[in-house]
Amino acid sequence: MRLATIRQPDGTTRAAVEYNEQWFQLDVASVSDLVTLPTWRALASAAINDSTAPRLRLSDATLATPLPSPRKIVCCGLNYHDHIAETGRDVPEYPTLFAKFGDTLTDPYAEINVGADSQKVDWEAELAVVIGSSLRRATKAEAEAGILGYTVANDVSYRDWQARTLQWFQGKAWDATTPVGPVIVTADEISPKQGLAVTTSIDGEVVQSSNTRELVFDAADLVAYVSQFTQLSPGDLILTGTPGGVGLGRSPQRWLRDGEVLTTTIEGIGSLRNQFRISTTEGY
Amino acid sequence: MRLATIRQPDGTTRAAVEYNEQWFQLDVASVSDLVTLPTWRALASAAINDSTAPRLRLSDATLATPLPSPRKIVCCGLNYHDHIAETGRDVPEYPTLFAKFGDTLTDPYAEINVGADSQKVDWEAELAVVIGSSLRRATKAEAEAGILGYTVANDVSYRDWQARTLQWFQGKAWDATTPVGPVIVTADEISPKQGLAVTTSIDGEVVQSSNTRELVFDAADLVAYVSQFTQLSPGDLILTGTPGGVGLGRSPQRWLRDGEVLTTTIEGIGSLRNQFRISTTEGY
Repeated sequence: MRLATIRQPDGTTRAAVEYNEQWFQLDVASVSDLVTLPTWRALASAAINDSTAPRLRLSDATLATPLPSPRKIVCCGLNYHDHIAETGRDVPEYPTLFAKFGDTLTDPYAEINVGADSQKVDWEAELAVVIGSSLRRATKAEAEAGILGYTVANDVSYRDWQARTLQWFQGKAWDATTPVGPVIVTADEISPKQGLAVTTSIDGEVVQSSNTRELVFDAADLVAYVSQFTQLSPGDLILTGTPGGVGLGRSPQRWLRDGEVLTTTIEGIGSLRNQFRISTTEGY
Repeated sequence: MRLATIRQPDGTTRAAVEYNEQWFQLDVASVSDLVTLPTWRALASAAINDSTAPRLRLSDATLATPLPSPRKIVCCGLNYHDHIAETGRDVPEYPTLFAKFGDTLTDPYAEINVGADSQKVDWEAELAVVIGSSLRRATKAEAEAGILGYTVANDVSYRDWQARTLQWFQGKAWDATTPVGPVIVTADEISPKQGLAVTTSIDGEVVQSSNTRELVFDAADLVAYVSQFTQLSPGDLILTGTPGGVGLGRSPQRWLRDGEVLTTTIEGIGSLRNQFRISTTEGY
């Protein structure tokens, strides 16, 4: 099943389920709200079978971030073998984790307006795991069963702010800078463990190209680990970290420039496409 | 004005305002909910003047965490001159920030049940700033005006988990381990800049003793800084960091033991009092 949150002409949003090249819209504001309903799968199936349900051709829909209001977003750093090599670190024994707020998320095709806030805007393509159950102290098997599905995120990072202190948070917490989507694909349809290609390109030039097989801690590992210390709930997000090829790790380093379009793709899910607006300063 | 969230016999909670040695209860579930109402000051005043408002003697009230559901909690590390000296670091140019989830908070007199999760449980007394306005890219003056008040927090840290990776989050994100309260004192009544004593004791032995004058970045500095990257809203919390005297910085290091009572006091606000339950292991 493929789920999305669709922006309506009046600015509100509705959750939708894809079937037969169309989005069937539900009477629920977003996938965040939908997946908190224990009967969400039945509701989605009913929408497909309801001849009066409002529907849209895929190409006519304006997609919003599928999960506008996760209660928790936990991000993992240093989790791809190739990215770890790039930073010169050892393969970690434990996942490196930090948190994001819901306001950090933005739409899958949103323009990202950096303005003069950062001169070192970097990209981090990430597989995002969508939680489907209430989980606390989950075993790996329970974590696996508690994964609702997967989506794409780009943990866009302001490296100048990130480098100001030991904690990465302030480089990764800018409102409306982490695009997510375009859709959520349920866990029965794709398998990151079997391997999904992860690609980032800038104006068509591929800068990250890896595969979810390269993950040190896989989706279920991370969900189980996080659930040791905090309750996870339907609609929460775990970002699994980024592969090699970020601007920080290149020689010379490379940052996003005004007008460039970042495309973030995960096989079997889809692509984010985000143009950046950055005020350049002298010497940039 | 002094505000609290009071636990009712049926398990629900209500916001309350203190007057004349009594808590006057409002028809709102918590201070989190109360302060999102633009008319909250008028409501609180009305409760004091309402002869039919349910009231409790201070000693009869069971206080819950005053802010059970902040949308955002941002914490600052390394922010007291004496604590920075203890860690051997330089005085920072920028605040070191990380985030917490609302589930991490617990009641001001709650028992904190560590179980076997950590063998290195440490204390961090902190002044917590309660946001009163919507703030984004606030100047220092706007930040100052946007502070609703102050409360006490203890950013109890599992140092074994905190040391697993470069990011502190997982040592500080355990559900129900950060006591907050007992009350919120509005900003017109106390001045951390003028100096408030901050004290932590374990079973009566003082382990932290400092003053909010020692803060490197004061409350308004932190609020203004955080608002550069994310929207702050009424009821959000900023934890301002801890002074010297934590267990990690002592020689030999000292961790909380099963049954010990941690008392965290800030002058003019009040005290948290939390007993710890910790499963000790051999060699501990």
